[in-house]
Amino acid sequence: MKEIAMNRKKSIHMSNREFRKYGHAVIDWIADYYDNVEQYSVKSQAKPGDIKTSLEKNPPESGEPMHNILEDIDSLIMPGITHWQSPKFFGYFPTNTSGPSILADLISSGLGVNGMLWETSPACTELETHVLDWLATMLNFPDHFMSQNEGGGVIQDTASSASLCAMIAAREKKNNGNSNLFGCREHLTAYVSSQTHASIEKAAMVAGVGSKNVKLIDVNIDFSMNIPSLKKQIIKDAKDGYIPFFVCATIGTTSSNAIDSVYEIGKICDEYKLWMHVDAAMAGTATLCPEYQYMHKGLEYADSYTFNPHKWMLTNFDCSCLFIKNRDELISALRIMPEYLNNQSSKSGEVIDYRDWQIPLGRRFRSLKLWTVIRYYGIEGLQNYVRHHINIAQQFLSWVKSDERFEIMAPAPLNLICFRAKGSDKLNKDLLNYINNSGEIYITHTRLNDLFTLRLCVGQTHTDVNHVKEAWGLIKSGFEKNKG
Amino acid sequence: MKEIAMNRKKSIHMSNREFRKYGHAVIDWIADYYDNVEQYSVKSQAKPGDIKTSLEKNPPESGEPMHNILEDIDSLIMPGITHWQSPKFFGYFPTNTSGPSILADLISSGLGVNGMLWETSPACTELETHVLDWLATMLNFPDHFMSQNEGGGVIQDTASSASLCAMIAAREKKNNGNSNLFGCREHLTAYVSSQTHASIEKAAMVAGVGSKNVKLIDVNIDFSMNIPSLKKQIIKDAKDGYIPFFVCATIGTTSSNAIDSVYEIGKICDEYKLWMHVDAAMAGTATLCPEYQYMHKGLEYADSYTFNPHKWMLTNFDCSCLFIKNRDELISALRIMPEYLNNQSSKSGEVIDYRDWQIPLGRRFRSLKLWTVIRYYGIEGLQNYVRHHINIAQQFLSWVKSDERFEIMAPAPLNLICFRAKGSDKLNKDLLNYINNSGEIYITHTRLNDLFTLRLCVGQTHTDVNHVKEAWGLIKSGFEKNKG
Repeated sequence: MKEIAMNRKKSIHMSNREFRKYGHAVIDWIADYYDNVEQYSVKSQAKPGDIKTSLEKNPPESGEPMHNILEDIDSLIMPGITHWQSPKFFGYFPTNTSGPSILADLISSGLGVNGMLWETSPACTELETHVLDWLATMLNFPDHFMSQNEGGGVIQDTASSASLCAMIAAREKKNNGNSNLFGCREHLTAYVSSQTHASIEKAAMVAGVGSKNVKLIDVNIDFSMNIPSLKKQIIKDAKDGYIPFFVCATIGTTSSNAIDSVYEIGKICDEYKLWMHVDAAMAGTATLCPEYQYMHKGLEYADSYTFNPHKWMLTNFDCSCLFIKNRDELISALRIMPEYLNNQSSKSGEVIDYRDWQIPLGRRFRSLKLWTVIRYYGIEGLQNYVRHHINIAQQFLSWVKSDERFEIMAPAPLNLICFRAKGSDKLNKDLLNYINNSGEIYITHTRLNDLFTLRLCVGQTHTDVNHVKEAWGLIKSGFEKNKG
Repeated sequence: MKEIAMNRKKSIHMSNREFRKYGHAVIDWIADYYDNVEQYSVKSQAKPGDIKTSLEKNPPESGEPMHNILEDIDSLIMPGITHWQSPKFFGYFPTNTSGPSILADLISSGLGVNGMLWETSPACTELETHVLDWLATMLNFPDHFMSQNEGGGVIQDTASSASLCAMIAAREKKNNGNSNLFGCREHLTAYVSSQTHASIEKAAMVAGVGSKNVKLIDVNIDFSMNIPSLKKQIIKDAKDGYIPFFVCATIGTTSSNAIDSVYEIGKICDEYKLWMHVDAAMAGTATLCPEYQYMHKGLEYADSYTFNPHKWMLTNFDCSCLFIKNRDELISALRIMPEYLNNQSSKSGEVIDYRDWQIPLGRRFRSLKLWTVIRYYGIEGLQNYVRHHINIAQQFLSWVKSDERFEIMAPAPLNLICFRAKGSDKLNKDLLNYINNSGEIYITHTRLNDLFTLRLCVGQTHTDVNHVKEAWGLIKSGFEKNKG
């Protein structure tokens, strides 16, 4: 027996025994990481090239043991990590994660299914449809976004991709599928506010619409889209021979969390037969709470809606949800059917093939983590989570407001506070660099009313009031050190 | 002390202790799954609606314990899984996974960084650049695909997205950035063979080029692109006022693994100043072995090249690599720079911001799993892996060849065998259904020379000769039962 065993070639693959051993070690490594994450410099202090030059120049001829690789992650990779999962990370918009989500996503990795078609793993498709119906209920959407009606939801990687898909569906709806067949020859025009996320401009570039055909509409004093300007521009463009087709309303702009009036924009879209897409990438999560559902007023006019559970709903990247009022409009714009993907289930019309709802063909089993998060936390848990962050962000707001050295730069309805030290842009830039180079917290900036503005967004899973207090202390002391 | 502890509100989050406990359980669950995967029906036997109707109709108000959710994965989800990670899965192209990859990807989930900019986690960007340079060396690419020259690599989700990015770069190169600005007004024309993956047609739809402007070139008897036909079509189109701009050469078509001549297509692209994109989604992995690098002859003409380590290189989904000859052509086509993403590092020009190399803005730390796979297996391990699969696929080929009841439908240079039972399409359809409904193995089909053709692709991590033997036995007995 021994001889036989010795004669068998050693497998090149990790044995199941090894997988258990290193798997447990990696789980513990992550738990230790979360135990200690506050001790790291939030922003990596690496300089350009530091990490690359520390790596082995050439790929190894022979395989290496797993423990070497894990050691190198500690010594070579960790110095180049900016700790998005530190409770003292306040930059950009958050990218959430949570224990239940990580574990469910791990199961997806283990199952390794490709859910491109219903047939290639029915559970991957049906769970996704079901969980997105759950979400539609939880966010108090109009019924038409549900799969039992003409709509439905799909998980995409990011809001950029989701918005691109919406724009393509809108493009084809407006020109009866002609761009798909003959190219984008019509002079289509899209509308965003000056505060809308740049991904819409990028979508117009990708989709052959052109960035010059994305009209930037002025904003009101609260940075929401100015409705009369929108209407005026649409009328002017139509008169000038352009073909208005798409408006993006934003719930929670990236710069300042400004909230466009979906209702007012929706009425205009209805009147002029334009596709209304709603980008609620981060702030959409707040509508889990009834007190924030006012932001959804007018959603019955929306043709599509996107928000990212990977931003502020405890689901690890990537998980962006796109809801569509009439799924046929999306599917007909993105569908291709080569013979090698043909199958009885697809032909039956009884099933959803999500590859027709997105740009990529292949797809990961992402609904598993979303389902797990919703079940683990429950609606109440998720509501408490959102309220907790908004509450401590509002505390921070009150501290800044009551300090005459600082000024608030925009309304702060949710978890993002835009502020600056009274003084020059240079002072604020210096202050930003001082704060981030300290490694104690991480914040980022924007420009509002042409002034360099600091942004503090509360959204990391474990951020609590003490972390925001620490941030405020550092900002104040940084001001004193940099005011010159 | 006890009182204080009791007064503290119970956190809604999973504690680190719970995370360790359930994390170890999930690791063991995956190991058990791989131990038992051959006992499952490879293709899920679920009927449309089975899974969805088994799920709780409404989302839970209160959170549930993790063990409930894990139990439901066993009882509700597993019946709807088609087991891509069964060594008896021979359908489509494989979607690989491996222990080292799963564990490294788990660390990425734990770190939860968003690598949209260099600044947002330098290691995420620099490891990616470095590992893709490794791959360029391993696949024996021309030097211009390396980051120290004018090129470089980027990880995308799928080859569909990678090819779309390549097409957009080509579009903008041909018309000096005009489509990005003003929309895709030119009459651009792309060229593929009748066997090219449908994702190129989809890219043309998305990019506003139009599917009618994707010209299908005839193929030779081995299903590779017919070069004189390509040349003739380009000349005709140019004369007719079209603007030829893009050719996709395929290394390993999805239908039959046909290999286009990159060299001959490249010479034409060079002569007519067309962008040559190479789609080697699965078969590219074979070029890890010197004996298959003949497929790369002429690669010095290629402007872009894509292959998916998530298909056949042991890296779990998603991980598709796009290499570009001149990175500025890609970046200038996809770049946007809103103020909220502005930062000193980006301005310095010293760093790569990968968001400019792709459609989405956010990005996961995917290079960690790719780096781990290459190090764990080493070049030799990966070569052995590829050779092993090709070897057993060729054994299967020899069995089919020597059985006069069956015929081979296409050359089989690698790990995909296209064959059919001699007889009607109906017989072969019945045979396919019989095989897949048995649950013993899973194969899929295509259509070659207008005949319904069965495809058996060897590519799952643990597939060995005994699995292929079992497949052949089942196919033969299925033939006897269905021949009528």
